[in-house]
Amino acid sequence: MAAEIVNPRSDSDTAGATRVQGSAGHEAGGEPLDSFDPVFALHRGGKMAVQATVPVRDKDDLSLAYTPGVARVCSAIAEQPDLVHDYTWKSQVVAVVTDGTAVLGLGDIGPEASLPVMEGKAILFKQFAGVDAVPIALATKDTDEIIETVVRLAPSFGGVNLEDISAPRCFEIERRLQEALDIPVFHDDQHGTAVVTLAALRNAAKLTGRTLGDLRAVISGAGAAGVAISKFLLEAGIGDVAVADRKGVVSRDRDDLNPVKRELAEITNRAGLSGSLEAALAGADVFIGVSGGTVPEAAVASMAPRSFVFAMANPEPEVHPTVAHKYAAVVATGRSDFPNQINNVLAFPGIFAGALQVRASRITEGMKIAAANALAGVVGDDLAADYVIPSPFDERVAPAVTAAVAAAARAEGVARR
Amino acid sequence: MAAEIVNPRSDSDTAGATRVQGSAGHEAGGEPLDSFDPVFALHRGGKMAVQATVPVRDKDDLSLAYTPGVARVCSAIAEQPDLVHDYTWKSQVVAVVTDGTAVLGLGDIGPEASLPVMEGKAILFKQFAGVDAVPIALATKDTDEIIETVVRLAPSFGGVNLEDISAPRCFEIERRLQEALDIPVFHDDQHGTAVVTLAALRNAAKLTGRTLGDLRAVISGAGAAGVAISKFLLEAGIGDVAVADRKGVVSRDRDDLNPVKRELAEITNRAGLSGSLEAALAGADVFIGVSGGTVPEAAVASMAPRSFVFAMANPEPEVHPTVAHKYAAVVATGRSDFPNQINNVLAFPGIFAGALQVRASRITEGMKIAAANALAGVVGDDLAADYVIPSPFDERVAPAVTAAVAAAARAEGVARR
Repeated sequence: MAAEIVNPRSDSDTAGATRVQGSAGHEAGGEPLDSFDPVFALHRGGKMAVQATVPVRDKDDLSLAYTPGVARVCSAIAEQPDLVHDYTWKSQVVAVVTDGTAVLGLGDIGPEASLPVMEGKAILFKQFAGVDAVPIALATKDTDEIIETVVRLAPSFGGVNLEDISAPRCFEIERRLQEALDIPVFHDDQHGTAVVTLAALRNAAKLTGRTLGDLRAVISGAGAAGVAISKFLLEAGIGDVAVADRKGVVSRDRDDLNPVKRELAEITNRAGLSGSLEAALAGADVFIGVSGGTVPEAAVASMAPRSFVFAMANPEPEVHPTVAHKYAAVVATGRSDFPNQINNVLAFPGIFAGALQVRASRITEGMKIAAANALAGVVGDDLAADYVIPSPFDERVAPAVTAAVAAAARAEGVARR
Repeated sequence: MAAEIVNPRSDSDTAGATRVQGSAGHEAGGEPLDSFDPVFALHRGGKMAVQATVPVRDKDDLSLAYTPGVARVCSAIAEQPDLVHDYTWKSQVVAVVTDGTAVLGLGDIGPEASLPVMEGKAILFKQFAGVDAVPIALATKDTDEIIETVVRLAPSFGGVNLEDISAPRCFEIERRLQEALDIPVFHDDQHGTAVVTLAALRNAAKLTGRTLGDLRAVISGAGAAGVAISKFLLEAGIGDVAVADRKGVVSRDRDDLNPVKRELAEITNRAGLSGSLEAALAGADVFIGVSGGTVPEAAVASMAPRSFVFAMANPEPEVHPTVAHKYAAVVATGRSDFPNQINNVLAFPGIFAGALQVRASRITEGMKIAAANALAGVVGDDLAADYVIPSPFDERVAPAVTAAVAAAARAEGVARR
């Protein structure tokens, strides 16, 4: 891994240095952002490159890797389409696709401005699980256009990671792409978060001698993450889960719900709660924040004993850990500077690596459950209140998730090798 | 460069070895193609990978390259779109786009089967000019769908190299994309071939004490390459050029011409020739073959003294060099095992590198002429009958073409930095 971490662009970077004013580049103008900000200095020239994995030093190399030799490989694939997986990079490369409508906490900033996040995602795929990934930021926000575009791109890729596409469009886009394509299509903002949350929740329950069935959870946020987490926790057998949006608990008696939230009202909130998030938290065992905003300390205090507070908003958790610790048995956040970081990078690299390894046609619920269990299992006997989820840099994580997902794909009959 | 030529996949390759039967994989079945064919062994697992160019070793690295740091870069680009060129890989990466309809000599073999060629193209971009490139093989042959798809992809790329798209669709697709986008769109099968041909022709003329204006050329083939070469040679001031398709010389009196060939009939063939290719060759100074097929020796013998025969069909030149040398002063082919190889790799890496270096909004005729002149100039005083064009592995080529194209872009006012 270390060997890959070099910057082949260092020369051209210097040569290509332009001013913060961009291509206008007043010589006497302001300093480059780089000169006073390490984040911009690091991003100069981008964060990734392509590399050849075969030699092209002389005409003999060229006659093997390109014409005339390559024609035989093309002909073989034309006769036997399966061979595309063996003799191209298709089965090792994922498209990281966005329309730039829900980027981090920044919202709809457009495709170009989303590229630094997509490049970051791509290098995380590579560094954490050896999966090649290519940023594809689309110049359309139209659901049908996004779908047809990704369908046309599919021959070149082994999988599609949807990223930072706003709800509720993200749900339809993912579902219709999964129906249209025979390669994995995975919206990480939904399922990556859900997988890591379930893993942490399993370990928290184990630590406090309970099962998922014993727990009632309240989720703040009915966007991509909130919807996916609630469905996934029900799948995994949680006792009950209620979801609150800005207007309060999602319940059957509300008449202001979009189709996605109406479905949520049918399958969640068995207790029939209504009203505010704060009210719903009274006596609840688990708080899961994926919304931003702040939860009053009194509401946290009103939760059941030995509660779990997963306040995952970045950079400001819905409940600050120092407050949460006054009442909760287990506290997790989305931040790297507190224990128990709920970080998608624990899931998506291994999930795709496992799916690609066996050429899975899709990523099933069983594969996601297997990923969550493997992630929880890495903690093992070191389980503690401040260690219910591994560090993103724990090198055991990606191999464990990869192996579990590959095995689950075989067990569920979606593996093609 | 040598550092990049490693195969990080060697382990997984072994592990992932499948049978020639593909995913069915009869254990007792045939040997993998790899075991008896070095071309397939080299292609196992593909020919390229993605690499991170920044470190992601610990949470401090992550906070710079990904959240929370990356959000500031996104915000800066949202406020000042030009910055996408400075702080992402956009301006260093080209999409190699095909629909798989005209792949090498194989014809319409579809997107998956075209991928080995697109990967090959991508690694040539990298190895010869340091340009990152991504293979995009589209699951559509519809002109409008190809155009709208590439337009939607454009935010992620600094340029578009169209590849192996059949004529006449390739002409409309390139033209409409050039009109729609503010990044270079370049169909290499047309212009790459034309640039290298012009370079070789200039040097052949110089060697024999003539100017382009003294020459009458006959081109066999009215596809992408034939059309582009004829237009480009006229642009450069050749005396006359006639183009022949399967039915003979393209002339005004033919009523079976598609719109592209009708235009060709208007601008070429000032001599008003009609009839067969063979007849047109009588007294001609230059033969340019981009069609395949065979030209009878008698027709070559009927050409003017000190003629040039550029028989570029692969693997079988239209005129075998041993035959051509009996009559011609200069002989070139598309093959690496004869002198004077007309190879696109002499042009496209440097042309895109130069265009990207100055963020050219398009690739103008002037930039292509500058590329051809720079390429011819590399030969310099070593000019000889068997050396009118440099070797693809001459390390002076890409820098010379890059510098000439960048300078021409500035001179023509299409440079943005």
